[in-house]
Amino acid sequence: MTNHSNSDSLRVRLTEFMERYVYPAEQVYADYVSEADNPWTIPPVMEELKNNAKTAGLWNLWCPYPEHGAGLDNAGYAPLAEIMGRSLIGPEAFNCSAPDTGNMETLLRFGTDAQKEMWLKPLLAGEIRSAFCMTEPDVASSDATNIQCSIKKEGNEYVIDGLKWWSTGAMDPRCQILIVMGKTDTNAERHKQQSMVLVAMDTPGVHVVRPMHVFGSDDAPHGHAEIEFNNVRVSTANILAGEGRGFEIAQARLGPGRIHHCMRLIGCAQRGLEMMCQRSNSRIAFGRPLSHQGSIREDIATSAAEIEQSRLLTLAAAKKMDKEGNKAARDVIAMAKITAPSMAQRVLDRAIQIHGAMGVSQDTFLAAAWGYARTIRIADGPDQVHMHALAKQLISQYGR
Amino acid sequence: MTNHSNSDSLRVRLTEFMERYVYPAEQVYADYVSEADNPWTIPPVMEELKNNAKTAGLWNLWCPYPEHGAGLDNAGYAPLAEIMGRSLIGPEAFNCSAPDTGNMETLLRFGTDAQKEMWLKPLLAGEIRSAFCMTEPDVASSDATNIQCSIKKEGNEYVIDGLKWWSTGAMDPRCQILIVMGKTDTNAERHKQQSMVLVAMDTPGVHVVRPMHVFGSDDAPHGHAEIEFNNVRVSTANILAGEGRGFEIAQARLGPGRIHHCMRLIGCAQRGLEMMCQRSNSRIAFGRPLSHQGSIREDIATSAAEIEQSRLLTLAAAKKMDKEGNKAARDVIAMAKITAPSMAQRVLDRAIQIHGAMGVSQDTFLAAAWGYARTIRIADGPDQVHMHALAKQLISQYGR
Amino acid sequence: MTNHSNSDSLRVRLTEFMERYVYPAEQVYADYVSEADNPWTIPPVMEELKNNAKTAGLWNLWCPYPEHGAGLDNAGYAPLAEIMGRSLIGPEAFNCSAPDTGNMETLLRFGTDAQKEMWLKPLLAGEIRSAFCMTEPDVASSDATNIQCSIKKEGNEYVIDGLKWWSTGAMDPRCQILIVMGKTDTNAERHKQQSMVLVAMDTPGVHVVRPMHVFGSDDAPHGHAEIEFNNVRVSTANILAGEGRGFEIAQARLGPGRIHHCMRLIGCAQRGLEMMCQRSNSRIAFGRPLSHQGSIREDIATSAAEIEQSRLLTLAAAKKMDKEGNKAARDVIAMAKITAPSMAQRVLDRAIQIHGAMGVSQDTFLAAAWGYARTIRIADGPDQVHMHALAKQLISQYGR
Amino acid sequence: MTNHSNSDSLRVRLTEFMERYVYPAEQVYADYVSEADNPWTIPPVMEELKNNAKTAGLWNLWCPYPEHGAGLDNAGYAPLAEIMGRSLIGPEAFNCSAPDTGNMETLLRFGTDAQKEMWLKPLLAGEIRSAFCMTEPDVASSDATNIQCSIKKEGNEYVIDGLKWWSTGAMDPRCQILIVMGKTDTNAERHKQQSMVLVAMDTPGVHVVRPMHVFGSDDAPHGHAEIEFNNVRVSTANILAGEGRGFEIAQARLGPGRIHHCMRLIGCAQRGLEMMCQRSNSRIAFGRPLSHQGSIREDIATSAAEIEQSRLLTLAAAKKMDKEGNKAARDVIAMAKITAPSMAQRVLDRAIQIHGAMGVSQDTFLAAAWGYARTIRIADGPDQVHMHALAKQLISQYGR
Repeated sequence: MTNHSNSDSLRVRLTEFMERYVYPAEQVYADYVSEADNPWTIPPVMEELKNNAKTAGLWNLWCPYPEHGAGLDNAGYAPLAEIMGRSLIGPEAFNCSAPDTGNMETLLRFGTDAQKEMWLKPLLAGEIRSAFCMTEPDVASSDATNIQCSIKKEGNEYVIDGLKWWSTGAMDPRCQILIVMGKTDTNAERHKQQSMVLVAMDTPGVHVVRPMHVFGSDDAPHGHAEIEFNNVRVSTANILAGEGRGFEIAQARLGPGRIHHCMRLIGCAQRGLEMMCQRSNSRIAFGRPLSHQGSIREDIATSAAEIEQSRLLTLAAAKKMDKEGNKAARDVIAMAKITAPSMAQRVLDRAIQIHGAMGVSQDTFLAAAWGYARTIRIADGPDQVHMHALAKQLISQYGR
Repeated sequence: MTNHSNSDSLRVRLTEFMERYVYPAEQVYADYVSEADNPWTIPPVMEELKNNAKTAGLWNLWCPYPEHGAGLDNAGYAPLAEIMGRSLIGPEAFNCSAPDTGNMETLLRFGTDAQKEMWLKPLLAGEIRSAFCMTEPDVASSDATNIQCSIKKEGNEYVIDGLKWWSTGAMDPRCQILIVMGKTDTNAERHKQQSMVLVAMDTPGVHVVRPMHVFGSDDAPHGHAEIEFNNVRVSTANILAGEGRGFEIAQARLGPGRIHHCMRLIGCAQRGLEMMCQRSNSRIAFGRPLSHQGSIREDIATSAAEIEQSRLLTLAAAKKMDKEGNKAARDVIAMAKITAPSMAQRVLDRAIQIHGAMGVSQDTFLAAAWGYARTIRIADGPDQVHMHALAKQLISQYGR
Repeated sequence: MTNHSNSDSLRVRLTEFMERYVYPAEQVYADYVSEADNPWTIPPVMEELKNNAKTAGLWNLWCPYPEHGAGLDNAGYAPLAEIMGRSLIGPEAFNCSAPDTGNMETLLRFGTDAQKEMWLKPLLAGEIRSAFCMTEPDVASSDATNIQCSIKKEGNEYVIDGLKWWSTGAMDPRCQILIVMGKTDTNAERHKQQSMVLVAMDTPGVHVVRPMHVFGSDDAPHGHAEIEFNNVRVSTANILAGEGRGFEIAQARLGPGRIHHCMRLIGCAQRGLEMMCQRSNSRIAFGRPLSHQGSIREDIATSAAEIEQSRLLTLAAAKKMDKEGNKAARDVIAMAKITAPSMAQRVLDRAIQIHGAMGVSQDTFLAAAWGYARTIRIADGPDQVHMHALAKQLISQYGR
Repeated sequence: MTNHSNSDSLRVRLTEFMERYVYPAEQVYADYVSEADNPWTIPPVMEELKNNAKTAGLWNLWCPYPEHGAGLDNAGYAPLAEIMGRSLIGPEAFNCSAPDTGNMETLLRFGTDAQKEMWLKPLLAGEIRSAFCMTEPDVASSDATNIQCSIKKEGNEYVIDGLKWWSTGAMDPRCQILIVMGKTDTNAERHKQQSMVLVAMDTPGVHVVRPMHVFGSDDAPHGHAEIEFNNVRVSTANILAGEGRGFEIAQARLGPGRIHHCMRLIGCAQRGLEMMCQRSNSRIAFGRPLSHQGSIREDIATSAAEIEQSRLLTLAAAKKMDKEGNKAARDVIAMAKITAPSMAQRVLDRAIQIHGAMGVSQDTFLAAAWGYARTIRIADGPDQVHMHALAKQLISQYGR
């Protein structure tokens, strides 16, 4: 159970840190990436931010285990995730970015001591980064039973063959470890066929095909990789939790993962709202500030109400997860997942419109944040999949 | 401060009461009204419900003063208001219907002992009913400074002249008292010109012109009256709080009033959602239940998420009112007011569509509840007025 | 093929007639109905309008056969239907109201000489009125194969048993003839089981159960009846076209019927737009006319654009029907049916909001017109049914 | 007046050309750009396409003057622009891409013989490219009177100083000529202060600051440039039409320009619709093709209806421009401008969602087309500006 006064104090310190270090670093970071010969290089300012965050005791805030991080529950972490999410470079500065948090949590819960020593430790220290290889181009991966990647046991090795894409973070030069989901036994019961194995990035046969683009952006320097696994061999010690437990692990990580995305997107939307207020107050068109336009006022008011609703819903999901467990909370998690990204998309779209051409450009964080929101309506299960699951639950509850 | 275990226990008892008495009475009530020679007569079943509610200790739940009612704060009352709001005849059964609650609260806070004895007592007992005469046909009454009704002092009388409409409840044969807003001094400072006086329904010169219709329905037997005040004379003792305090009283009552409407509309929407689940499970079209249609599932899931968000936002407004006062809470009140009625309208519209022609008819509560939701987007200030006020506050907060 | 200069000239004369006779009659008509002891009586002003329209040569404009009416094709009739649709009492004044036009067309195309002499003649003359009994409360009637009403041949009689509702116009005291759809042979091929028979309103066993309400309004004096058919016996000569042809007749009438509704709703929306412009120009709130509010300007502009798009689409459907036949035009008919009523609903909702409380009341035509638009999203097949049919056609066309 | 059989025949030939040459070239083009060391290089396949188009007689189709192109009016060109717009590399292949068409038309209408010889000729031949420098970062350029760029006459030279951005096409290595809007006389009447001058790209003082990004994409190899004009000197012979005529020229080019964008976006949306049909038919999720999902069918049907409405509206605008002139048609042009880009955005967003993660990526044209649609809601005047202008016109027309 979270010590909430701890969460409150972290909130204040985090806000100060964002203002003092993170926002000013955004342009430095962007300039470095855009001017780099190789966009897949990490701007030094990021490592500075990380060092400062460690020093300030703002490190691994996501981690519910006090020995490794802030020791907050979901409800305690939610407002912090929102604050970090206000900048697209925020979460990494505090070692709280996806997919590393999910990968670390997976290792914490399902890893062996050796696996933890090897991979969790440097991840917690922010020395390396990781990726999660689940989605495949050829099948609807929102239905995990469709997965085709093959993990065959041969002696004391697993042999991995398959094609993955949208492995977020795998383009990052510091990415050293992949968690790969595949099928170890296609004859097993439908949800026991899948397993997860740890694959070091430099294992022979791991081939990064290309970076995937999101609305034209390669999201460098982290990116989203298409990766081919061609006769990739790892030790059987690299299995996570055991054969046939891949589906279970995926379920375990997705609940919190979805909620973390929602929290960050609420931060994005809130910042977009504040930018709308600033822009509309300073921009003159047809003889008066935009803020005097009734339609812009309605955009601002509607956005504020929508954000507050998403915030409360996401917090309610976090509380239910803390109190009743992720499985019991799956209805509220689904509600947050189908509404918060859409909300952020709408709010950011209004902010873009109020900013005019600048809004779609690289000169504000709005366009990139919009792309993030749009993507999350597909990632971790498209809206429709969550809607259908939620509706089925409701129909069985009320539809007698 | 609410005793929340008390609120929880009331919630259980209220739900049981609704199921045992209120829902079964809906058809009885509707039949009585539709078959009455004069629609402006009260179905006897309503007085039975009221007696049962009194006996069950479910009376004046809205009232924050323990000597007169449940003694709950806004946050404690919110879930109860939602439950009562699930039926359009619910709130009255528990003496919790608009505008009587607002009028009773006004009398409690601003009435003299004599005024309380004369009007508050029978209102609290559910023996008479009341109306609130503010809106006027000729001016935009959402801006209270526009009000034209004249209240002139002559000796120890006030003389009232003006035309009001949308005086909800004034068609009810039991309505005996009107709270009338008008101007006592058009030379005073803009927000000090208005006053409120108590006018007995049978005062000479009070002329009910006609019932106003809401989408073709006269909302009998309570209705919404157009009332002409023609040289209506009342004692100066009938003033509420004093001359020039009309605006202040209006502000005081509107905050909670708006939130109560939101709570009831959330109850309407929740019932609509449950009806969607039932209907879609039982109705067969093109060879399978509607509940197998993806689009209907999305309607159900979206509605559930929207309802939950409105519920949390309205509760947040109630809590802020309890903790920081109605004025400080005006931002969240505005957020609830601009989103909950629209939400209810959307959810009920989806429920109507799933019910087909039955949905627009008198055979379900959906059409009438929709009309209620639609009206609240205009009543107590149209959405636009609240949006603009909220936006101005946000722009001054963030727009530096 | 329409003589389009004829259509143009009719348009001018019709507009003049609407302004001179129809709009001024609206209040007279409404007052008569609201003050009548029995709402199911026809205001005399309607018969005056009809006489005037006959004298003015504006009679049976819908009828494509020059010997009976204007002899226009669908494209020629479309702008006229829009003009008449601007008033809810408009179409009847010109003998162009639903369901009579559909019923007359059905008799013209499928009736015997005796049937025409008996029923078509007085209908064309505007002396009697008719209803169409298809929808049933117990089944999803948008799928005509679900229909349960039984039409059994016994000797030289058909015996009809069943329950129908939403028989529009059947409450009208002048309604003398019903077209009833039922099943003559439940063993036949799925679309050959249905037949239509003519049933005089005064046939023993025809029992009007009650008027159905639309959002609380009984739509008097025409109304929508629930009708029980209890051992109703008619001559076998009353069959339309022959046994097993009910589905075919239904299809034939529904294409134009849907488009006529769209045209009239475009007229409703256009009038709503004009009322928005007038209201926003004359109403002062917070110190300036509503028309200076940016959000109201956006409502007006958006509405105008949406109306014009619907108008063009509906006209395109009419042209395709004229040129390629109703069956080939079913894609564009579906497009109009799924967009025009929703468009009218949105535009009228905005107009209501701009009119404030007056907008939901009986003081403008907005609320009733909104109810009409809302209902048409369900009548003649709910939106969803048309969407699915259209999508299937598109998927088979493009989805290779 | 267009020879419409000519337009019909061109439509057929254009469709064949698109299928034979353009669609297959898309991947070749994209690969070249993404693999180029310098993204601002033109893929050779484009020059091949242009040669083929010339040979096929599909060149300068936009040009209403038969001596230079197809000689079609707006209504004749509309369906061709839609077809070309189906590929983002389509318009250039036929020398019909923005801003070159607008620049060529400007030169045709306002250029001197010498200007035409120098710049129009190679533009018509597709040998060079051009940009239009109007928008400025520091002011709301949708209000042209805000423009700050200075054009000062000194002797027989104009001296240009100012900062422009979103000069589309100016990053293209073949771009040789800029049309620059600035103020020659800040003391003149408000709409006579602006002038346009021709500035060769290689004039000293013309400094390309950077490419602007659109949702993270640099839109290479054409791009949108930020350009600094620092003491740029051109001959007074470079003025277009004369001093003070800049606003007039801008108005003249924007009407058709907006409509051309709408046409191309309708092509984008239509292709998106067809891709939805194909994808939903081939993709299996949860055991059946997506095309069996009711919600996907509704997306497809709604999209088709919305596209057809936009197409008809845009065509109506084109016809009115042809018949009554651009000024008289400004109401319908505004209607198209405020609805077609939003429509394309919605349709493409649905298509993206149906394609899952592939939809946001570089693997389909959907994300880039979406970015185009989104941008056009801001370019050439944001939606709001057009809505307000249209509303004012409507209010003065109807609002008496």
